[in-house]
This record gives sequence, structure tokens and C-alpha cells, in this order.
Amino acid sequence: MNPEQTRRILEQYKAGTVSLDEASKLLLADEVVDLGFAAVDTQRAARTGFPEVIFGSGKSPDQILKIAREILAHNSRVLVTRVGPEAVTLLLKEFPAAVHHEQARCVTIESGPLPKRAGEIVILAAGTSDLPVAEEAAVTAEVMGNMVTRIYDVGVAGIHRLFRRLPAIRAAHVVVAVAGMEGALPSVVAGLISRPIIAVPTSIGYGANFGGLAALLAMLNSCGSGVTVVNIDNGFGAGFAASQINALANSGRIP
Amino acid sequence: MNPEQTRRILEQYKAGTVSLDEASKLLLADEVVDLGFAAVDTQRAARTGFPEVIFGSGKSPDQILKIAREILAHNSRVLVTRVGPEAVTLLLKEFPAAVHHEQARCVTIESGPLPKRAGEIVILAAGTSDLPVAEEAAVTAEVMGNMVTRIYDVGVAGIHRLFRRLPAIRAAHVVVAVAGMEGALPSVVAGLISRPIIAVPTSIGYGANFGGLAALLAMLNSCGSGVTVVNIDNGFGAGFAASQINALANSGRIP
Amino acid sequence: MNPEQTRRILEQYKAGTVSLDEASKLLLADEVVDLGFAAVDTQRAARTGFPEVIFGSGKSPDQILKIAREILAHNSRVLVTRVGPEAVTLLLKEFPAAVHHEQARCVTIESGPLPKRAGEIVILAAGTSDLPVAEEAAVTAEVMGNMVTRIYDVGVAGIHRLFRRLPAIRAAHVVVAVAGMEGALPSVVAGLISRPIIAVPTSIGYGANFGGLAALLAMLNSCGSGVTVVNIDNGFGAGFAASQINALANSGRIP
Amino acid sequence: MNPEQTRRILEQYKAGTVSLDEASKLLLADEVVDLGFAAVDTQRAARTGFPEVIFGSGKSPDQILKIAREILAHNSRVLVTRVGPEAVTLLLKEFPAAVHHEQARCVTIESGPLPKRAGEIVILAAGTSDLPVAEEAAVTAEVMGNMVTRIYDVGVAGIHRLFRRLPAIRAAHVVVAVAGMEGALPSVVAGLISRPIIAVPTSIGYGANFGGLAALLAMLNSCGSGVTVVNIDNGFGAGFAASQINALANSGRIP
Amino acid sequence: MNPEQTRRILEQYKAGTVSLDEASKLLLADEVVDLGFAAVDTQRAARTGFPEVIFGSGKSPDQILKIAREILAHNSRVLVTRVGPEAVTLLLKEFPAAVHHEQARCVTIESGPLPKRAGEIVILAAGTSDLPVAEEAAVTAEVMGNMVTRIYDVGVAGIHRLFRRLPAIRAAHVVVAVAGMEGALPSVVAGLISRPIIAVPTSIGYGANFGGLAALLAMLNSCGSGVTVVNIDNGFGAGFAASQINALANSGRIP
Amino acid sequence: MNPEQTRRILEQYKAGTVSLDEASKLLLADEVVDLGFAAVDTQRAARTGFPEVIFGSGKSPDQILKIAREILAHNSRVLVTRVGPEAVTLLLKEFPAAVHHEQARCVTIESGPLPKRAGEIVILAAGTSDLPVAEEAAVTAEVMGNMVTRIYDVGVAGIHRLFRRLPAIRAAHVVVAVAGMEGALPSVVAGLISRPIIAVPTSIGYGANFGGLAALLAMLNSCGSGVTVVNIDNGFGAGFAASQINALANSGRIP
Amino acid sequence: MNPEQTRRILEQYKAGTVSLDEASKLLLADEVVDLGFAAVDTQRAARTGFPEVIFGSGKSPDQILKIAREILAHNSRVLVTRVGPEAVTLLLKEFPAAVHHEQARCVTIESGPLPKRAGEIVILAAGTSDLPVAEEAAVTAEVMGNMVTRIYDVGVAGIHRLFRRLPAIRAAHVVVAVAGMEGALPSVVAGLISRPIIAVPTSIGYGANFGGLAALLAMLNSCGSGVTVVNIDNGFGAGFAASQINALANSGRIP
Amino acid sequence: MNPEQTRRILEQYKAGTVSLDEASKLLLADEVVDLGFAAVDTQRAARTGFPEVIFGSGKSPDQILKIAREILAHNSRVLVTRVGPEAVTLLLKEFPAAVHHEQARCVTIESGPLPKRAGEIVILAAGTSDLPVAEEAAVTAEVMGNMVTRIYDVGVAGIHRLFRRLPAIRAAHVVVAVAGMEGALPSVVAGLISRPIIAVPTSIGYGANFGGLAALLAMLNSCGSGVTVVNIDNGFGAGFAASQINALANSGRIP
Repeated sequence: MNPEQTRRILEQYKAGTVSLDEASKLLLADEVVDLGFAAVDTQRAARTGFPEVIFGSGKSPDQILKIAREILAHNSRVLVTRVGPEAVTLLLKEFPAAVHHEQARCVTIESGPLPKRAGEIVILAAGTSDLPVAEEAAVTAEVMGNMVTRIYDVGVAGIHRLFRRLPAIRAAHVVVAVAGMEGALPSVVAGLISRPIIAVPTSIGYGANFGGLAALLAMLNSCGSGVTVVNIDNGFGAGFAASQINALANSGRIP
Repeated sequence: MNPEQTRRILEQYKAGTVSLDEASKLLLADEVVDLGFAAVDTQRAARTGFPEVIFGSGKSPDQILKIAREILAHNSRVLVTRVGPEAVTLLLKEFPAAVHHEQARCVTIESGPLPKRAGEIVILAAGTSDLPVAEEAAVTAEVMGNMVTRIYDVGVAGIHRLFRRLPAIRAAHVVVAVAGMEGALPSVVAGLISRPIIAVPTSIGYGANFGGLAALLAMLNSCGSGVTVVNIDNGFGAGFAASQINALANSGRIP
Repeated sequence: MNPEQTRRILEQYKAGTVSLDEASKLLLADEVVDLGFAAVDTQRAARTGFPEVIFGSGKSPDQILKIAREILAHNSRVLVTRVGPEAVTLLLKEFPAAVHHEQARCVTIESGPLPKRAGEIVILAAGTSDLPVAEEAAVTAEVMGNMVTRIYDVGVAGIHRLFRRLPAIRAAHVVVAVAGMEGALPSVVAGLISRPIIAVPTSIGYGANFGGLAALLAMLNSCGSGVTVVNIDNGFGAGFAASQINALANSGRIP
Repeated sequence: MNPEQTRRILEQYKAGTVSLDEASKLLLADEVVDLGFAAVDTQRAARTGFPEVIFGSGKSPDQILKIAREILAHNSRVLVTRVGPEAVTLLLKEFPAAVHHEQARCVTIESGPLPKRAGEIVILAAGTSDLPVAEEAAVTAEVMGNMVTRIYDVGVAGIHRLFRRLPAIRAAHVVVAVAGMEGALPSVVAGLISRPIIAVPTSIGYGANFGGLAALLAMLNSCGSGVTVVNIDNGFGAGFAASQINALANSGRIP
Repeated sequence: MNPEQTRRILEQYKAGTVSLDEASKLLLADEVVDLGFAAVDTQRAARTGFPEVIFGSGKSPDQILKIAREILAHNSRVLVTRVGPEAVTLLLKEFPAAVHHEQARCVTIESGPLPKRAGEIVILAAGTSDLPVAEEAAVTAEVMGNMVTRIYDVGVAGIHRLFRRLPAIRAAHVVVAVAGMEGALPSVVAGLISRPIIAVPTSIGYGANFGGLAALLAMLNSCGSGVTVVNIDNGFGAGFAASQINALANSGRIP
Repeated sequence: MNPEQTRRILEQYKAGTVSLDEASKLLLADEVVDLGFAAVDTQRAARTGFPEVIFGSGKSPDQILKIAREILAHNSRVLVTRVGPEAVTLLLKEFPAAVHHEQARCVTIESGPLPKRAGEIVILAAGTSDLPVAEEAAVTAEVMGNMVTRIYDVGVAGIHRLFRRLPAIRAAHVVVAVAGMEGALPSVVAGLISRPIIAVPTSIGYGANFGGLAALLAMLNSCGSGVTVVNIDNGFGAGFAASQINALANSGRIP
Repeated sequence: MNPEQTRRILEQYKAGTVSLDEASKLLLADEVVDLGFAAVDTQRAARTGFPEVIFGSGKSPDQILKIAREILAHNSRVLVTRVGPEAVTLLLKEFPAAVHHEQARCVTIESGPLPKRAGEIVILAAGTSDLPVAEEAAVTAEVMGNMVTRIYDVGVAGIHRLFRRLPAIRAAHVVVAVAGMEGALPSVVAGLISRPIIAVPTSIGYGANFGGLAALLAMLNSCGSGVTVVNIDNGFGAGFAASQINALANSGRIP
Repeated sequence: MNPEQTRRILEQYKAGTVSLDEASKLLLADEVVDLGFAAVDTQRAARTGFPEVIFGSGKSPDQILKIAREILAHNSRVLVTRVGPEAVTLLLKEFPAAVHHEQARCVTIESGPLPKRAGEIVILAAGTSDLPVAEEAAVTAEVMGNMVTRIYDVGVAGIHRLFRRLPAIRAAHVVVAVAGMEGALPSVVAGLISRPIIAVPTSIGYGANFGGLAALLAMLNSCGSGVTVVNIDNGFGAGFAASQINALANSGRIP
């Protein structure tokens, strides 16, 4: 609650349009619906730009369904990530608008076509095995109202595959670079463009990869300026941050 | 070199305005000045939006001076980070415009006043000990043409200190959140604003902090959406990425 | 064996009420029932305030049953943690008073209603996925004679969800704060209350979470004073320690 | 700010005893004194039971002095931990009541004799090298109003040294167990007493000790119930938590 | 091949009792039977005191059988560790003398009763879950000709359980101490006896146990002198080393 | 594209044998076939000496089949590593020349007999359990045109088994040394020969082996000069590098 | 206190030769001299075979001196390890019999010539840089009454250097093998002899040695049976354990 | 000693040209000069292609001098790495032919000009700070008789700097790629050439670089085939291995 809201409530109370009890309650306003196992944050879109996202892993299908219902009661879109087959069936049955993005392991529900922001978000993936994470980033960016270009299998071991796609990459507002193994893709791209790059390490690899640690450390130590990093396999986080950046880039254009 | 450049050179060659040797050389154009110990990238500003930055650590004062000279021969600004006292003396002596930012451990040299972009970059620091890293981020963002607001000592252990600054934080285009210890600051801020947040773990702490690893892992695992992370103590990287995002936000506004 | 016990045995021996052999044996008194695979400590409640607890993981259902029988022969309560379905069936069949706490993965057996101590123990959980660990803490604290208040899904990414429950949290004698991901919950709470806080990291998360290591390190490095930490997923340990603290708080009140 | 405070301000405003501006400001009341490099939390004692503590490491002597002044302007006690020789000199010169605890690396300033709470806090140290950490815990507990009993050099390799002190240990309200090397002391003590035990791993040792990691892991994995752990070398945190527990134990006794 | 052997072969060759070819071959004598997938070392018992042991993990049942046959062709005993159910069936079928030690996951085959060495090897286990590792140590020591005393469930959290068995422990030639969790058992025992102690960390535990790392580090950092350590869960290694020590202790007694 | 190629295209363009569009396209020549999920690099053999290799893990059988087809359209050989049973069936059905190397988990397809290079590549394996990795190295080296000698079960615990094979090892052009456990094999061999040694740590072992980390660190720290290391279990990488070295050794011999 | 001692005291008390107070005190007998900062264990030699050893690191020279005095008041020998130059000066000045072992960083004080036990303890060191640790082991074994043979610079990279010393190594009762780098020495030796081997990893090396971790892991994963391990750089621990084993070997020989 | 040598000695002995004692000694021939602290391996050049190299770190200047003398008594070249200033002075004074390579921290002593092998070894360094390690590799390769081309400051963040040097890189027999930070250089190069690449991670970087671990893991996980890796900062090892490979490439050319 910011100072303006505080002032407004105080003035309404003085004017008698709200009672002492009401004013007191408003100043500690409850924006949360309590489901017992979860406290759904219904005002999140207003505060952070997007409704609460349901991280499916570790929640029962029934819990996911109930939280989805609650979010859709207050918002026009919902995103469920890391969703298992049972929850998918439940969601598709309940919500006709639900779409299952299989490779991305996501379900999205949108109550109607949303306008798309200007500016492409380009998703790069180093190898074929990185696609599930790249797709999670792509689906997230799309459901948040962005146009997405996918450029896959452009790892640094065959660097000409990357170079022939440079014009498309340079045209992006934001680049998400997904890579496992030695995670060198974002470093190389960072030296070639002037746009923000979000690096996503994946757990692809074996041996001294240590579940994506090798790629994570490489990306954090990138010699390329302007690279920021999200958690291993966190396609959602990268797509979300890319969307926030693109939203900012669009904010000045609306008259 | 993009397709357009390639076409142009080919056409000039056909038209006879460039010779075979010249065309061949241009197609493999040398944008690098070789100092023996360093290959200075003089076209970097054109390609990535900012001239090459000199990472002072591990370079001799003399090497730093020579690289700075070379960059300034082609660019109007130079930034030296992690710079030691000897190199500072050398730089201040040679370049009248050089400024030493002591707490940030940086030297900046600007050939004249640069126009500032619209939109604040807010730098948050959790504790007094995080200031050197926060200042490195702030100086970097400033030398790249951004307005910076510093909000320091707002760690989560006294969360009301953070909340009373929320209006200023919400007004930012981009937020850089610098924190050591348990690194919780970016997670809390992420739930309160809709702008991009760049988290910088610092090596402040002791015991099971492991040189900033605790804060780094916390930030990578942030439950707050939209948080991206740079390397431990990498104030420069955060300031650079914040500037890239702000530059993108301003790109649509220039008529 | 403390000095008073030693003196008493010596006096009885001198007085002839115990023989040399008896006195010698008493001075090395056997408080242990040996089952071959386990040495059940029948005097533990007298010494540490609660009978031996059966950690179910790694023990066969039959071993669990036999140890439970032995403890119940000397005590009025037993707690089995991390118990599998087979052992649950065996225990429910043998002991009519046995209760299976499914989400907590515990079985409790109480020979009758126990008086509850004054003072609430508040169990906070950051997310829905942390509930199994939070419930283990809650069940442990309850079987040890405490009143427990559960406040769930109050993670720092939506900090107003935590704040609206502050009055209940501030009323607690002891707070147990359960969190995975970046584990920031205890740090924020520590700055708001003056009661002891026991932090429990959970293995919830993925990527650079490393099985709860991220949350563990964050909690150990908490900038909030008064936070102590137990092992990853160790809901039992937190509930036990919280009960010990509450027992101490009640010890002075019994006339 | 809790609901009662909110109600009171609203009623005063209605009654006209505070103006709209005053009420608005009070509802967002500033409890922080901003020193530029630090935001001193002057109401912390009211909120958490003890004024802000100055962690000396990473702060300049001058910064420490200024923060100490600000805290003493609002509180009767100040504690500076991890304090270097220069800051010690400055503090002793400025504050006649300042006391330097050399082995504990602390300075305390108390404006007058404080009443001591009932109940001993026992500080155990496994070896001679663990004394600086044990003393930090002891000084912290004392400045917070507790009686402290020190029992040093009672490591498990000579367990009879521990046993001959058992009566004193059993008489404690809270036990702080400080140990480096293999960190086994708290586990052994936990099986012998029913009071809360706070374990402090120290960085004492070499080789595969890894700066205290060995002791930390051992304590987190303690088979003794009721053991909670603080960060490596964090004597302050253990003393603070022990004091909070003892304060709770005393809370019911004040008529 | 030692100098005496070299001399002898040379003298036999000079004397004509061996040919040049024979001498040359003898000097590079082949003590290995090559099975293709394995090179069985038939002279190992002569060289190191015990025939080659078959580590069953990672070998097919058929490979285990073939190696066992080859060893038994040259030796009177064989030990198979970490053996799966299929290999057990195969071995029991082929060798009437084979014995399956279920809890120890071993099969032993002895061609006849072997004389036992003087001196007990005492195997301590901290908890019920440590028994498989303790039994592997016990079976190994027994098949190598030693008398073994098992003392189980004597962890340090109930230290009186350990103390009542001290006379038996002090009577041992060698002590093997098996413990998971915080691994404190060997440290406590080391301060009470003067015999060699071999510590075996087990992977029993959870959370920050990290697969036995906590116990391993604790044992390596033991403050008790005379403790040596083997790999996590390596009951075989501990039993083998204990037997070597006991064999040395017996070596001087045989007239 | 090297300067010679650039010149040639420019001259052809001037001569009119290629058009402006063709020249432009050639200078940015597309050597990649895009399958959507994969961008197959058809000119890789020309550039690096061997066609693209299909790392089967993480790819669907159908994806593997399609990539294999594409590679075989441009090359005479294909190697699929880490291939699962379904993909094996598919490949064997489609390509009559496909061979399944079961222990090596590889499929090779060769369109005809290839000439073998001079010089043996010797593959050493320390134990029977290291054979899958050793075989992957062997199959890789063979399909790349090398003669391979396998010397297995020659670990350092029975060092005479290694020594009796020294003449064969010393005759090699390159040695690949595969070992798990403590990974000492390459160090010992390095002191005995003057040829390049490629060390392959395997994940064989348990406890503090940490999935091959122990062997990896040992090999990186080898006191034997001339040892280079590949990733844990990376038999393919070792075979590939060995072949490159042997190809170089043969390059000077072709008149 | 064992049962025999308990019986004896009880009988003396009955017989009236000790009073009730004396008997009570004896049964809780104080074998400790309390110096405030240290509790010196004067009966340790009786209990574990050697007086308390002073680990010099982390103790002040004055503390070392006082503890040394106390030990010498009850014992004929004292060993100080990891001793700094100031403490050396103090000890040499106070005790004429004190000997400084410079390379071993030890001081020993022996009140007279002690008889040596039968049987050599052989100390192997892999490289010249491992000598300080090897010497600490050697000095420890000597002061405990053993004959020591030093065999240095016999690392596995030049394995013939080791082999030419095999007769001396095979003649040992116990072998201590000290090695840094890849730590392979004990594995090779274990396959060649039948005596107990104690492996000591040293922190010698660089890069991915990680302060001795590489050698430690290698030794724990040794494929050679009978190898036990002590902490990194713990020459004292190895010498102590070797002496205990040799003492056991000699115990049967004293009539 | 190989079979041919064995046969020859046996024949000489039979022929009477060597005595029994001589033959016996020859068969166990001593190729080692024992300096007490070091056992110098005088036949190493014959066995492995280069005399023993002196790793200066951890050896006293005097020890280095003595070992250098001993090697030079049997060989024409010596290489001292990681050499400190005192040892440099000593060596330059004693040996007129000694050359100090300052940046490489090496001293080389060559008794005369050596013929150089055909084929360049190219040393790549990613950044200016990687030069000491790159120079160690270069000096090592040169003293072993190779021609070396240095190509420095060609890191992947400015990939055109690398590409303009591709013709020189492709002309190499062997490539050594030295890089800190994210260590991506070898992966990119591997996709462009067909020659062996030896990757050297350096400890250059900060934060989550962990002393070169980030670069090491990246290189081990390289998606580029044919990359092998040496220890962090191990320029010597890379230079040595590169020389061995180049020697092999030249072996077939000598008539």
C-alpha cells in the first residue's frame, strides 16, 4: 500500500464514506484467497504485471486445479509449469481454453486473444536436448503477450550455424540463450549484439557436468558483458524476465 | 559482417571503386589493434553499444594505460574496473578527464558531458559492507549514460527500511539488488514491482557463506519471478546489463 | 549417574541393604533393552524429556514394530517418523491408539490424552510443497504436548501474505519457519519478532538448489538475529527443539 | 505496525488531535535514521528485544563510531562484534563506559548496570582454540542480560572431562556448544540433558575440515534430538538465540 | 620379484637346470590368468595375505562365477562382496560350500575350517541402519581368519549404551567403528582405548548428510588420536585392514 | 571460410561465372540442413576430419534416425553413441550396414571397408567394470580408421598385471587409459612411455567416489607428465582425440 | 572407570580404608587439571597409551608452555605439533631436553632414553614437497617408541624408484604412505605387501587439487585392499596410528 | 627393463663377461641418484623422451640447484617451472646457459642449440591475464624442441579476433588453448579445425569462478570433439603433451 492509497482511505474515512472498521480493514487489506494448502495472491497481476504462476512440481493435480480456478476468477490468463499428465487431463477437461504445450511441459489458459507487444524475443537453444527448457521459455514469453522467434541447435561447436542466423538475432529486443554442456553460447552472442541476453543453463550433459553446474558456472563467469543468468533449467524464469524487459521497452510507446 | 555489408563491398568492387585486394581485406576486415599482450577491439561500441571495458585485475599498470590510450583513440569514453592504486596514479596523470571512483574501485574517462537516457536505474544494497559492489554497478550505469538512484542498507532483516523506499523503487526502469549474507533482497523486491531486477550476490559474510556462494544460490533459487543474476561481486556486469535494458527502453522514443 | 545417586548407592551398600554385586551393578546400571539389532533406551524420557523416537527410514517394518512395543512398555507415547506404508499397516493393526499422519509421514501412539503446555508454537511454511516437512514439525510438537498453529504458503515473494498473519506470529512462544527455494522466510520474520525462530530448509526446488543446500546456506547466513537451523527436511528436529524451548518457558510456571 | 496501532492513529485523526498529514506520516512512520552508508533502525529493541548490533567486519572505524553514536542516542546498550584495533581505540576514547572483550573481539557499551534474568546460559567449548567463538557467545548473552557459565576444553576425545561437569550443564536453561574438528560435542550432550542446545561449529581444524564445514555438517546431522545450529564461528548468533530462549523462559515469571 | 628370487633363477640357469628361455620367462613370470574381461591374480594371497576379492557391483553374474572358479582353483577361500540375487543363486548352485550372508550382501566360499587367530576384532555400529555395512566388515574379518564381536546400536546420542560395553571394547585387538549421521562414534571411543580404531562412515542420513560426506569429514577430522578412515560404506575395506593388523599382532607369536 | 575461398568467389563473380546474388550467398554459404529440432552440419568432415557424431542420450529414436539419414546422405560413416534399445532397432532395420556394439552402447554405419591408419591405439582399462567406457573409446577409434589393441583389467592394485603388457603398451602411437576408483593408472603408465596418454575417469566406485570425481581429480593432478584428461565416462571423446593424434602422426607419411 | 576399579573402591570403602566422601570422589575421580583455557588430561597415557599431545596451531606460546609443564608433571614425554617459532624458543629455554624437529614442525621433550619396540615403521613420501608431513609422522612414531625408516621421493610417476626399495618396504610392520598430487602411492604399495598401510594425503599440488582433496579422494577410493586414511596433512595422526598398531604387534611378545 | 635387456644380461653373464653379482645388480639396475630429499631419475629422458622436470614450488632454492646439477650431469637440458626469485638468482649464477623466462616463471638450461621438429605448436590465450600460463606452455614446448606460435587475447567475447587468426591456427600440428573465465575458447576452436586441441583452464576470474573450476568444468564438458584437458594453470603439462604429440607426428619422417 503506497502513500496515495493511504491518503485516499483516510480521506474517505473522514468523509464518512467508510466506517472506522472498514478503514482499518482496508489499510490492512486482504488480497489473498486462502485455500488451506495455498494462499492465492489475487492482486499479483496489478503489482508485478502477471498473475501468479502455478509451479506444478510438488503439487497434487487437485491442488493445481483449485489454484487455477481461483486465479482465473480474478485474471484472464493462467500459466502452469512442470505439469504432470494427470493434472493436464484435469485441466483440459475443466477449461475448454486450456492448451497443453507438451515439449514445454506447460498448460496455458487464456480467456481470449491478447494483443502482442512490439519487438521479438529470440530464444536460442544450443542443442536438440535443450529444447524442453527453451520451449518453457518460449511458451512463458508468449502467454505474457510477446512475439517469439525460436532458433535451435546453434551451439558453439559448429559456430557457422549460429552466424548464419545473426541477422535474426540482432533484430531481437531481448535474447534468451539456452545451453547445457559447457554453456558457451551466451558468451559468444554477447560479443555480437547490443541487446540484453538472459542465459539459461540446462542440466544436459554427463560426468563432470554435475546436473548443469558446469554450464551455470560458465554463464556466471561469462567474459561477455550484459549476460544475466537464471537457475539451471529455469526456462520459465528466463521467459518471464525477457517479457518484463520487453514490456518496459514498450511502455514508452503507448501514447 | 552482415549480408548488407557483404553486398555493398561486392558492388563497390564490381564498380571498381575498390580493388580485389581491398575488397578481400574488407571482407575479412581487421577491427583489432594488436598490442602484443592485448588485441584491442576498436569497433566494439558499434557492435555492442559500449567500448571495450578494461578489467584491471591481473593487468600491469602499464598494460592498463596502453589499452586505455588505444580505446580513447577510437571512443569518447573508457571504464577501468578493479583498478589498483598504481594504475590510478598513472591514469590520472595522463588523462586530465580521468575520475577515480574510490569506493567503486573504478576509473572513468569521458571526453565530454554525455546526454543521459530517460528512466532511473535504482541500485539497492542490503548492507553497508555491500557498498563497493553497489558503487561499481552505479558508476558503470552512469558512465553508460544512465541516471542512477542509490538506496543503501535496506536488507530484509529490517524490512520496514525497504518498504519506506518503495515508491522510489517502483518508479525505476530497472532495479539492481546487491546483497551478501543470505541474499534475500531480490526475492522480496520481485514480489512488489513489475520491472526487471538484476541480482548481484556479494562475498560479504563468513562461515558457510563460502565467498558469496550462499547468496548466489539463494538468488538463483529466488521464488520471485523476473530475477536474473550475475556473478558474485560483479557490480560491473549488473550495471552494464541494466544499462542495456534501459537503452532498449529508450530506443523506441527517439523520433 | 550424578553424585547424589552415587552417594545413595554407597550408603545403601554400607547399610547392607544392597550387596557388593548389586551395588557394583547399580553403579553401572543398565537402562537399555537389547533387541539384537537395536538397544532401546528405556530411560530416555527421564533424561531428555521424551522417549526414544523411531526414525523409520532404513528400518524394516518388523524392526519398527518391535522397537515401538519396547518403548510403549516403558512410556505412554511413541513417535515414528519417515514411516513407510507397510510399517503403518503393522502399527495400526497392533496398536488401536495409533494415528497415521499421512502428509507428515508419521505415526503417533498415545496411551491417553496428555495435558497441553501454555504458549503456541507457530509453524510457518513458505510454499505448498513444503507442507510434508511443516507437518512433521507440527505433529512432533503436538505429540510432545504443545499447541500448534499452522500458517502456510507465506513465502517472501508475496510478502503481504506474511504480513497479514503477523499478529498470530507475534503471539507465538516459538516460531518454526519451513522454506525451500531461496529460504528467505526466517530472515524476514526474525526482524519482526522477538521470539526464538527455528529455520528448516527443505529440498524443494531444482537446478542450483542442490537438494536443499541453497536454502540451508541462506538460513545459516541469515542476517536476522536469533535464527537457528536444523538439517534439510528435518521437520522432526525443529518440532522437538521448539517443544524443548516451550517446555523451558513453562517450567517456571508450575508452582 | 499492528492493527491496534492503526486503529489508534485513525481515532486520533478523527478526533482532530493529529492532522491528515501527521496521520499519513505516522501510518508510514519512519523508524530509521539514515547515515548515508547505513540506515540505523532505532526501534529495533522494541520490535525484536535488542537494539541493532554492529557487525564490525567490513565497516570502517569511522562508520562503526557513527552507527554506535546513533544507537546509543536511542538505546542504553550497544554491542559491536568482529571489531578491529582501530575501531576499539576510537570507541574506548569516545565512550567511557565502553569495554573491550579482547578474546571475544567485541566491544560493549552499557549506560548502567542491567538486571540479570534468572537461569544460567552454559557455554561449552570443545578445545582451547574454540575460545574466541565461545567468548563471543558469552559476551553477547551477558550484554543481553543473562548469567553465563563458561565450561571450556570438554571435547569428546576425553569424555570424562565433560562428564565431571554434567551437574552444572544439567542445571542450565540453555546450552551453547562450541566445537571445531569433528563437531561431536552437541550430539553427546543432547543425549544427556532435556534443555535446548545451540550448536556452533568453528573453523578450527585443517585439511578436510574445509573451514568448519566438517563440524557444521556433523552438527546438522546430529543424531541427538533438540540440537539447532548457527553459522560457522557465529558465536554472536548463538548467544543471541540463547538469550531469546532464556527471555521467553523468564517472561512468564514477571507478575 | 625380490633380489633373492632373481639370484636363485640366475644360479639355476648357470647350473643348467633351467634353459635361457625358461630363465627369461621366469624373470618376467606370469602370475595372471587372463579371462578376457578380467586378469585374475593367482598369486595375490602369497603377496598380500589374501586371495583376490570379487567386488560384485558392476560385474555380470556370469563374470563373477568365472572369476570365483579361477580363484578357487588356486586358493582355499573366496569372498564376493556387493553381490546381487542372481549371482548368489549361481554361486550357491555351483559351490556347495558357498554361504550367503544376506545382511552383509556377501558370499563366502571356504574349502574347509580355517584356524582362527588370537585376539578379538570388535565391530561397533552406531545405529540399526548401519548394520549392512557393519556386517560386511564382520564377514570380511571372519573369512580372513579372525574372531569377531558385534556390538550394535551404541551411537553417541545415548552414550551410556556405549559405556556399558566398554570392557568388551577395551579387550579388542582392533576396533571397527561404523557410523552414519554425524559420525562421532570413533572420536568418543578413541579417547577411551589404546587399540587401533578403523572408522567407517555410512551413507545413512538425509539432507545435509550428502551421501555420507558428513560422517566422512567428521571422522577425518576426529579429535581422537589413532583413528584411520576408509571410504563411505566400505565395510569390506575396514574388515580387511583390521585383519591385516590382527595378523601382524599374531605374527610374532607363532614359534 | 578462409581468405583463399573468399578470393576465389570474388574472382568468379568478377569473371561473371557467378551472379551477385550467388556470390553473396556463397560468401555466407549454408552448410547446414535444418530439421527443425536439429541443424545438421553436413560439411563437418571436411572441416574437422569426421562427420557429425550423434550423441543419442536425450534424443528420441525418431530424431536419431532422421539425423543419421541426413549425415549418411553426405558422408560414408556415422557413429551413434549412448544409444537406447529402441533406436538400435530402428537403425538396424533401416540401415543394413549398421552394427550394434552392445557393451560400448554404440551403433556404427559404414558404407564400405575403410583403409586403416598405421600405428596402434592401445586402450587400457583398470577393471572389469570400466569396460563399457573403454569399449566406447575403442569403437570410436576404429570407426575413425584406426587399429585398436585392448588391454583390460590392468589396474595398479596388481601392478605386475600391467607390467607384463608393457611391450605392447610401449609399441602404441597413443594410449587411452580408462580407470575409475582412484584413477591412478595413467600416472603410472606416463612414467613408463613417451607417447601421448589420454586419461578417461569412469564413474565406477562408490562412497566418496562422487560419480567419478575422485578419479577425475586424480587424473588432472597426475604427477606423470603428458597426461591429458577427458570428461568422466567420455570414452567417445578419448577415442576421438586419440584418432586425431594418430591421424596427425600419419599425415606426414603420405607421399 | 571399569568394573574392576569400581569393585576395588567399594571394597576399600567397606574395609574403612577410604571414607564415604573419598569413595564418592574416587568414583567420580578427577583426572583433569584445569588451567582455565585448557583441561589437561593427566591420565591419558594410562587410558590410551600416550600422554595428551599439544596441537600448537591456534594456541598462544604461553598456553603451549603451561600445558607442556602440566603434562610433564605427570608423564615422561611430551609432543608438540604445528609449533610456531615463538613457542619453540620458549620451550627450548624452559626444557633442556626439548628437541626442535624443524622440517616436522614439532618439539619433543623426553625425560630419558626410552626403549624402542621391535619392528620398523616405514614412512614413504611421494615427493620432496611432501617431506614436512612425512617428517611429522616420523617424529611422532619415534617419540612413541618406534624405529622408523624413511624412504622419500618414490612417487608413482617413476615407479622403478619405488620398486628398488621394495625389500625394505616389505620388511616393515606398518607402512605410512604420504602423497599429494593424485595420491596413487598407497594403492600401488597395497598390491605389493601384506602389512597395514596408512595413507596420508598432502595439500601439495595446485589447481584442481583443492588443498589436498584430490589425493584424499583417491586414497579413500583406493583399489588396494587394506589402505586406511587420515586427514589431509595429518602426519601426526598417521604416526600415532602406526605406533598403536606396532604396539599391538609387540604386546604379545613381552613375557 | 624389457625382455631384450633381460636376455642380453643373461647372455653376458653366461658368457662370463659379467659376474653373478654384476648381473644380479644389472637386473635390478639403479637408475636413480639419491640426494636424500630427492631421488633423481637419470634415465627418464630415455624412457619418456625428456629429462625429469623440476617443479620449483615447495622446494628450497638449494634443493632446486642440487637437482638441476644432477640432471645436467646426465642430460643436455633442464626445465625448472614455478621458480621463485632466489632460485632464479642461484641458477643464473651457477649455469651460464641458464635463461629466465619471467612471465612464464621458468628457467631453462640448454647445453647447446637443439634441432627443432617440423610443425608448429600454436598457443592460444583468451585474455591478457592468461599470459603467464600460456607462456609456461610455450617455453615448455620450445625447450622440448618445437616451434611455437603465440596467438593471444582471442577470447570468445570478441570472436572476430579469433577468426582473423584462423589460417595460422589451422596450420598448426597441435593447438594449446588457454582460457579462464567461462573457458569457452577450446569448444569454439574444436569445431573449426581437425588437429588435436589441449585445453588449459586458468584460475583467472572471481566470484563463482572458484579458482578456475568454472573454466575446468566447461572444458571437460566441451561440446567440441577432440578436446582434452589438463589441470588448472598447468601450462607445463599442456606444453609437454603437445610436444609428445608433435614428436609422434615427426617420428615417421626420420628416415
